[in-house]
Amino acid sequence: MGTGSSGSAARRSPRTGPTVEVLRVGHRPGRDPRLSTHVALVARAFGARRLVLHPPDPGVERTVRQVAERWGGRFEVVGAPSWTAVVRAARGPVVHLTMYGLPFERYVPRLRRASEVLLVVGGAKVPARLYGEATYNLAVGDQPHSEVAAVAVALRELLGPVPASAFDGARLRIRPRARGKSVVAREEAR
Amino acid sequence: MGTGSSGSAARRSPRTGPTVEVLRVGHRPGRDPRLSTHVALVARAFGARRLVLHPPDPGVERTVRQVAERWGGRFEVVGAPSWTAVVRAARGPVVHLTMYGLPFERYVPRLRRASEVLLVVGGAKVPARLYGEATYNLAVGDQPHSEVAAVAVALRELLGPVPASAFDGARLRIRPRARGKSVVAREEAR
Repeated sequence: MGTGSSGSAARRSPRTGPTVEVLRVGHRPGRDPRLSTHVALVARAFGARRLVLHPPDPGVERTVRQVAERWGGRFEVVGAPSWTAVVRAARGPVVHLTMYGLPFERYVPRLRRASEVLLVVGGAKVPARLYGEATYNLAVGDQPHSEVAAVAVALRELLGPVPASAFDGARLRIRPRARGKSVVAREEAR
Repeated sequence: MGTGSSGSAARRSPRTGPTVEVLRVGHRPGRDPRLSTHVALVARAFGARRLVLHPPDPGVERTVRQVAERWGGRFEVVGAPSWTAVVRAARGPVVHLTMYGLPFERYVPRLRRASEVLLVVGGAKVPARLYGEATYNLAVGDQPHSEVAAVAVALRELLGPVPASAFDGARLRIRPRARGKSVVAREEAR
């Protein structure tokens, strides 16, 4: 995980908390592109640095790249032929989000002190080995729901609100409105 | 929205905050069953009373009913032939969750004081009229992400952690574990 730049105070300021990557395991390219795209967009919007997708899916990578080009920031989706390689290369705690795990909220203070965290979510099929490879198996509630929601809530609890600076370089920016839509296009040298 | 029982202190105790229903508008039965199922399961797990699905989709209703039978509580999915009828029958604020809206968090104190709240999320296509019919158009972050995540975060902020009593009558219960899965079946008279 990581490019060696994660310790840069300039990059992470004024965010508090770790640099977070999300690994989505067990993606099925024919069936899951929309759900994995939702996982990716949530990872981006809630402050993760990137989504690692296993197995790779160029369609999801392209869709999310187009969103990031329009809406700013440096988020990307990268494909991983081996999920175990990603887990073993992690430089911080590996947190498998599963309804069968211990309560996530109990581990938040500890995870916030890490400099890097890898959140792992499964799809329809989760490899049994993942439970053993993870540093922690943690549950965002002990009811069945959605990996999309688990990533959102986990990131929100680890990172808090994401500063606007995380989306620097956006071509489009929303002007919040009580009714209807207002989008501002920014003409910038790129 | 509602059956007239929402004022029951016994039913809502010890939860604080309003009774919440979620309306999913613009569901496409052929394309969206998995995403709408995720919205429904998130609504259930994070404390909403039910999901109203427009247009109706018996497949989603059945899937979620099976989950609720196993995992407890009274959550249900009900189909609505007309979303405007649902919005107009609401007995509290109607909150359309949209990235184009005003910041959700700013309205949380006000919404927590309501006795009923209807959260509305769109799918791929959101009817323009919804912006006018809603009491509030509010954004969970001003970046594109996912209606699944928006419902999770909004419910978490409105209701806080959901008490175990919300899932009374479960046949299955998870025993949280550091590794692997442990599910306890409860033998009860039903």
